[in-house]
Formats: sequence, C-alpha cells, structure tokens
Amino acid sequence: MASLSIDVIAFDADDTLWHNEPIFTETKRKFEQLLANYHGEEWINLKLDETEVRNIQHFGYGIKGFTLSMIETAIELTEGRISGREIGEIIGFSRQMMHHPVDLLDGVRETVALLAASHKLMLITKGDLFDQEAKIARSDLGDYFSSIEIVSEKNTRVYREIMERHAIDPERFLMVGNSIKSDVLPVIEAGGSAVHIPYPSTWFHEKLDGVDLEHVDFFELEHIKQLPAFLNGR
Amino acid sequence: MASLSIDVIAFDADDTLWHNEPIFTETKRKFEQLLANYHGEEWINLKLDETEVRNIQHFGYGIKGFTLSMIETAIELTEGRISGREIGEIIGFSRQMMHHPVDLLDGVRETVALLAASHKLMLITKGDLFDQEAKIARSDLGDYFSSIEIVSEKNTRVYREIMERHAIDPERFLMVGNSIKSDVLPVIEAGGSAVHIPYPSTWFHEKLDGVDLEHVDFFELEHIKQLPAFLNGR
Repeated sequence: MASLSIDVIAFDADDTLWHNEPIFTETKRKFEQLLANYHGEEWINLKLDETEVRNIQHFGYGIKGFTLSMIETAIELTEGRISGREIGEIIGFSRQMMHHPVDLLDGVRETVALLAASHKLMLITKGDLFDQEAKIARSDLGDYFSSIEIVSEKNTRVYREIMERHAIDPERFLMVGNSIKSDVLPVIEAGGSAVHIPYPSTWFHEKLDGVDLEHVDFFELEHIKQLPAFLNGR
Repeated sequence: MASLSIDVIAFDADDTLWHNEPIFTETKRKFEQLLANYHGEEWINLKLDETEVRNIQHFGYGIKGFTLSMIETAIELTEGRISGREIGEIIGFSRQMMHHPVDLLDGVRETVALLAASHKLMLITKGDLFDQEAKIARSDLGDYFSSIEIVSEKNTRVYREIMERHAIDPERFLMVGNSIKSDVLPVIEAGGSAVHIPYPSTWFHEKLDGVDLEHVDFFELEHIKQLPAFLNGR
C-alpha cells in the first residue's frame, strides 16, 4: 500500500455515517403487506423497483420521490382499485420514514470527532436537499464538517467541481463511503483516493453489474473505526 | 436614492427569471376539477392551502411535496372515497409540472447577459434540488452565473453564510427577486441591498401579513429591464 498524504477527508452520509437502507427496506415490507390481497411479495417488489428506476430521472433520490413511486406502483398493481384510504396509509409510511431517528453506525461519532482534530472533513451526500439537511441536523455531527455538499448526483464531474471550488488537490483528497458506484469510481476518475466501507445491504440502484474492479486502485475497510489507523499507515 | 456600488448581483429564480406560480395555479385548477363532484372550488383550495402549510415543514418546497399534499387533501376531502385511478391523475399532473417548459420572463435573457459583462452574478433559489437543477439546465442561463446556490430556506442566516463563504462584502451585494419575504427582508437584515420586482401573482406562502415596510430600505422596480439603468444611477 502506497502511503497517503491526505488533507481533506470527505464522507458519504447514508449507510456510511448513519443507517438508511433498513428504513427503506422496512417500508417496502409494509407496502407488500398493504398489497398482499392483490399480489405476491416478489412481484410487488419487482414492480416497485421498476417504477423507482423509471422515476429516478424525474424525481431524483429521496423519500418524497420514493413515496410517489409507491403510490404509482400501488395504482398500477391494483389496476386503479386501491382505495384512497390505503393510499393514505402509504403517505403515513413516508411520514414515519421522515421522522425516523437518525441512527449512527457503530463507531461513527468517535471516529469523526478524532479525525476532525487532524483533517479538514467534508460531507458529500446525494439526495433530497430537505431530507438530507434534516438528517444532518438530527445527527448532531454537523459541526465536525467544515463543509457540507448535498448534490443531486455523484459523478466525476460533480467531484471535480467540488474539489475545484474548494481548491483541493485531488491527490490529497480521500472519499469514504459504502457505494463503489457513487463514492469510489467517480472519485478515482477525478484523481482522488477512496476508501470503500461496505454496508451489509446496499440498494440495488447502487450495485454494479459487470464492472471489472481488478484494475481500480481503491482501499477497502470493514469498519469506520479502522480509518484513523489506516490513515497513519497503520 | 443613495448611489450603490455593487460587485455581486444575486437573482432569485422562480417568478423572477422564469414563470413558476402560473404552473402551480394551473395545476390547482385541474385539481379542483378532479374533485368537483365532492366539493366546491373554494373549499378545495382552502383545504389544499392548509395541507401545504402543514406539510412544508416535513416536505420542504417543490413539486414532489406539492403532489403529496394534493394526494393527501384529495383523500381527506373525499373521506377516502377517491379512487386509485383519480389519484393516478394527480400524479399525472405532477409529471406535467416537472416537464413544463422553462418560460423566461420578458427581458430576462438580455438583461442577465448584459449584467454578466459588468458584474459577478449569482443565482440563489429555494426549493427542491432536483427540480431547480433541471430548470436551470433547461433555462440555458446557467453559464451567466458564477455560482448557483440552491437552499432549503432563504433567511438571514442563510444569506450571511453564502456571503461569508464567497467572501462577499454585504455592502457590495445586491439581491433581486419577487418575494419581499425571501429576497428582500433577510438580505437587508444581513447588511445587503435588495431590489424587489413584483410578480403579478405571488404564492400565498410568500405573502406578508402585518409587516410594516415603511422603514425598510429597499428598492422596487417594475421590470427586470430597468435594472442596468438603476445600477448606473440612471
């Protein structure tokens, strides 16, 4: 492993600092139960995934777009027979998601506090501006980050633009996140370094099919707690 | 009128650079027609406004939140009797809103192009990140602005933070927009200057009740085309 000289460490938020995917998974279970009289679980899930993928380009990421996708799927799967009352339940699910407590991953608070003493920390997160700001506020981690970037998509152009705007040398920039697609590949492409910390379940939309990672030079850690030692070259 | 020495001109977007409120108004008309069998227009409108105000704190601004508010209102007003098919129509309305062409106000393109030659221009807009980015892209005005800030709320704290981050002296900062509440008062409070350009119809949420503007020192123009002459002291 080459030694890294890093000035700026940027963290992804959802499923890197706090649990996010389980909240969506739990809601999908409720959605399946709601439609159990109409269809089987697997078919419901497949159709919801299809609607989500189709709608991402119109709605972007986040709870509101996901809720509209659930409602649309419910109408489609019931051929319009779903009742207003049942759709009201779906809106209730979204309200529960929005008010879900922000549950930090194990070791996050200590690690972020420790690294903030030695490095400039950033938060780079994709999604709905309103949802993300609310979660950052409730996480009580905001003060550790010297800047917070909420973006609609994480690609090479966006990372380049952020580094330029903050006058960051890509060679001294490290991104830490759970998504190879959003937190690793575009950062490497932009000339930076990346640490991948896998999350037990990852949203299908963030999964990569058929990409050969053999020649991509990034790091992988099991746990965020290993980050300080990793930065010190162990 | 005191003479102004301005380095940075920041523009609001919705109903300052392009028409926005009429798209919402048109959708509200369709929503009233959809529910015409259940209630009168006025009552429908009143209830939708109530739901919007209640939901802003959970959903923020933008088309997706507005759509969820329409669906919720429809369920409430019909006591759950609205059909899935009819709710599907509401989702259709939101899709039409999202794909509505970006229709610039008269004189915007020339004025922005002219001022970009002499000043640093910014765009400061509130709302849904995804919606706003899409509109900026479709407006074809993006290149005139040296920075674009999409924020979830426009208050004094947010304007101060933007000026600090960009190292802008408030005395040399001018905000131009159609909302006294969002584009004028907080900017004055933050030490900057503001030009109010009223829009024929303004969303009720942006209207001010009982605020005495007599001692607030801002400028008012009828039309964006008057801005260059205003800046030159006429």
